[in-house]
Amino acid sequence: MPASAVSPIRRALLSVSDKTGLIALGQRLHQAGVDLLSTGGSAKALRDAGIPVKDVSELTSFPEIMDGRVKTLHPKVHGGLLGRRGTDDAVMTELDIAPIDLLVLNLYPFEQTVARADCTLEEAIENIDIGGPAMLRSAAKNWNDVGVLTSPDQYDEALAEIEAHGGLTRATRFKLAVAAFNRVSNYDGAISDYLSALQLNDNYDAIAGHDAFPAQANGRFVKMMDLRYGENPHQQAAFYRDLYPAPGTLATFRQLQGKELSFNNIADSDAAWECVRSFTKPACVIVKHANPCGVAVSLDGIGRAYDLAYQTDPTSAFGGIIAFNRVVDAATAKAIVDRQFVEVVLAPGYEDDALKAFAKKTNVRVLEIPPPADGDLTKAHPGNDSRRVGSGLLIQTADRAMVKAEDLKIVTKRAPTPTEIDDLIFAWKVAKYVKSNAIVYAKNRQTIGVGAGQMSRVYSAKIAGIKAADEKLEVRGSVMASDAFFPFRDGIDAAAAAGIQAVIQPGGSMRDAEVIAAADEHGMAMVFTGIRHFRH
Amino acid sequence: MPASAVSPIRRALLSVSDKTGLIALGQRLHQAGVDLLSTGGSAKALRDAGIPVKDVSELTSFPEIMDGRVKTLHPKVHGGLLGRRGTDDAVMTELDIAPIDLLVLNLYPFEQTVARADCTLEEAIENIDIGGPAMLRSAAKNWNDVGVLTSPDQYDEALAEIEAHGGLTRATRFKLAVAAFNRVSNYDGAISDYLSALQLNDNYDAIAGHDAFPAQANGRFVKMMDLRYGENPHQQAAFYRDLYPAPGTLATFRQLQGKELSFNNIADSDAAWECVRSFTKPACVIVKHANPCGVAVSLDGIGRAYDLAYQTDPTSAFGGIIAFNRVVDAATAKAIVDRQFVEVVLAPGYEDDALKAFAKKTNVRVLEIPPPADGDLTKAHPGNDSRRVGSGLLIQTADRAMVKAEDLKIVTKRAPTPTEIDDLIFAWKVAKYVKSNAIVYAKNRQTIGVGAGQMSRVYSAKIAGIKAADEKLEVRGSVMASDAFFPFRDGIDAAAAAGIQAVIQPGGSMRDAEVIAAADEHGMAMVFTGIRHFRH
Repeated sequence: MPASAVSPIRRALLSVSDKTGLIALGQRLHQAGVDLLSTGGSAKALRDAGIPVKDVSELTSFPEIMDGRVKTLHPKVHGGLLGRRGTDDAVMTELDIAPIDLLVLNLYPFEQTVARADCTLEEAIENIDIGGPAMLRSAAKNWNDVGVLTSPDQYDEALAEIEAHGGLTRATRFKLAVAAFNRVSNYDGAISDYLSALQLNDNYDAIAGHDAFPAQANGRFVKMMDLRYGENPHQQAAFYRDLYPAPGTLATFRQLQGKELSFNNIADSDAAWECVRSFTKPACVIVKHANPCGVAVSLDGIGRAYDLAYQTDPTSAFGGIIAFNRVVDAATAKAIVDRQFVEVVLAPGYEDDALKAFAKKTNVRVLEIPPPADGDLTKAHPGNDSRRVGSGLLIQTADRAMVKAEDLKIVTKRAPTPTEIDDLIFAWKVAKYVKSNAIVYAKNRQTIGVGAGQMSRVYSAKIAGIKAADEKLEVRGSVMASDAFFPFRDGIDAAAAAGIQAVIQPGGSMRDAEVIAAADEHGMAMVFTGIRHFRH
Repeated sequence: MPASAVSPIRRALLSVSDKTGLIALGQRLHQAGVDLLSTGGSAKALRDAGIPVKDVSELTSFPEIMDGRVKTLHPKVHGGLLGRRGTDDAVMTELDIAPIDLLVLNLYPFEQTVARADCTLEEAIENIDIGGPAMLRSAAKNWNDVGVLTSPDQYDEALAEIEAHGGLTRATRFKLAVAAFNRVSNYDGAISDYLSALQLNDNYDAIAGHDAFPAQANGRFVKMMDLRYGENPHQQAAFYRDLYPAPGTLATFRQLQGKELSFNNIADSDAAWECVRSFTKPACVIVKHANPCGVAVSLDGIGRAYDLAYQTDPTSAFGGIIAFNRVVDAATAKAIVDRQFVEVVLAPGYEDDALKAFAKKTNVRVLEIPPPADGDLTKAHPGNDSRRVGSGLLIQTADRAMVKAEDLKIVTKRAPTPTEIDDLIFAWKVAKYVKSNAIVYAKNRQTIGVGAGQMSRVYSAKIAGIKAADEKLEVRGSVMASDAFFPFRDGIDAAAAAGIQAVIQPGGSMRDAEVIAAADEHGMAMVFTGIRHFRH
């Protein structure tokens, strides 16, 4: 039984909710000598186009009943799909079960129905297809003899084989069967997700709400690529995307040039992209080992933003991931390739001359992430966040909170100046993407020192100071952002000694009064956000 | 239609692969006046127990054919399950479709069949149940009128209702329908996982292998608990476990006392547990902000290990997570509650007096993780690791590599002493669980300084040194572990200056020769593992 062995197709059952390509398919199957069976709307569409077609109810001698709830759940249909050619021939003849060699079926989009805000309980339940998945599963199980098409984009390839060979090859039938089981799994997963989350009213006859975290959670992911290895060379890995990825998020990238992406490239790219797209003005974020090591915003454009981001920590920027929230121009691309080793560049687009500049370094991975339809990158919503723990999964809503100037609560005697406000908001956005405990020093919308990933806050502050000093960046006149509150006044005292003049932090410590008093003593301005940004 | 409204049960269809509780169920249903329908093995078992039962083939007047492939796929079965009482009565009478009010059905465990190493392609395909899921879906869709039982552990509650009220309440029917759709989703997900990963031979008629990362990946998780909030208070969250969690992993915990677990508690607990269970000798790991801040192994037992781990960084240990790889005794429990604020304690077990000691601090969360059947915690395998990125998922095999003394490649003139080897292996195990870049200083199986989460390795080394000095721990005579290679000799020079006398690292830098020469100059011993342990 070579993979190229063809099983002949003499009879096909067509029953589709998506009518795309149906008429052409029907015509070509008819011309190839295939007898057509169909139901309801599909039968009518074919007949209207003059294509001879037989109703399934004629085959079963059983009427379609209960408003279509029962029409194909019949042994003449399922026997025709499941009968093993060569093994079950006698019983099929005896019971007058005609073999069905090809099933063309797509399911009503349950996911889209229940996504509608006004979908009622009755509509949701009525849109659970029973006959369709049963037929898909019968045909796919019997892939040895039967072909199954679940999507219009499969029609052309299948028709070409049928027209050339009178049927489908073994290799094709297997591929199609796997696709059919995947489709059924996605469909049932969506039903399970929806019903598990459903909260009914007291009478259990209408929807009262939806639980954000249902009793059962089903992840459904499609492989985008195998990776050479995982976080380390002895680990194997692959990259998957959501069944329905959100526009403007990393998983929608197109790679325009460069080497194969690695596991760490993708993880770091996500951190860089999520951080850079939180800015509305031209911005550049450089990430290394999952942390921003340099970030800047410049009204002079992303070229200047890149220069400033690079200056924060040139050592770490070496081999980093560089992300922009604007189309990359030729000068910026040239500045990068002339100056540094870079693993990945990310942006919503590239000028042609920028791509020519990158083309000189063929290894550099250049990724384009098309913006959402409204062009607003800050609004892209990648869905829930999750964290894998030993045989378990922590699922949480994404950290989408972002404060504006008007949300800040000024707690010190001195209010921040407008320039300080700008820098405080800038530093706060960066701190959100730095691993906890996070301390960010910033001035003129440029990071001056980034203290990341420490088990106690005071060490993160020390590191930010050490890094600024090592790069000869002047801390005096900078602002400081802290991703969580200061438990004691010592952090403020140390910051003042380093020359920090304004502070942004959530507030909420038992010792806030002591911390505010310290800031006042030093003549600092301090604002509370009321929001914490732990990120581990 | 109140939630307590009962739909009467007069006829039930029983078809189970798991016969647990079947006879008692049949007897009680029969005594409650319910007519029983059944198929194959279930019918025989009931009949052998003297319970009157009718075959489905009698109902359908259609034989069971194709070795059981087609037996219940019939409008008299599905019409009986799907018919809307009150709406479809006329057509049911006309076509002699008897209502089926209760379906008791569990599916053949496909997952277990394909988990067998010798499972053939034919066996796998033949074990895909077609009729069962179709009936489950019909009954669950029609939950308005029909009850569906998918597991023996549901029988008692349902029988009690039927015996008391002659049927099931609306609330119960809905709950059972959701469980049925969840079961079908898990079943189809398992088929999709299996077939997507299947690699066939050239003839497409036998299994050639299994792809570690199939074209479609389906996650299936069961909620263990809602969490008060996520990583931050403005995020919502819940904790799920795998459908089949591995023994000895975090998700199998039992909480013996204490406050509700938080998102960060669980994430940190996983880091602590994974680290501590990598040691065979009595060990203690203290975690804060996802990093080990103190680790020790002591042949004197876990009480001493805790003392030593605590000494590394008492500031960070405050409010930390403390994990042990041995049953916790009373003295150790008392030492903890007397000395420090602790969020969570984890261990494979607790002596009664230890629990009494913890009971004095009612907030402390005490988790027990039962060891696997063979008692070997180091072997527990939590399954694949994954990382969420914008609308995507990075999936990788877990980082299970762990070197032994005999795997180490000595690259310096001086070989490490046996004591140094012990400390090197100890430090290496700790470094594996410290966020990258990771540098760990250790002496006498105690961490002396932990440098975590930096964008360049040299800063991690600086931090390890600063922390040791701040806690007045003597670096002289310590060993150093680095999770990845040293790109330049400067890291070795700095370590030697601090008093480090032996180094463990993967090796593999372009400048290994230069790095080895530096170690030789300083009279240090250095070993290469050939394995990197990035962890971000």
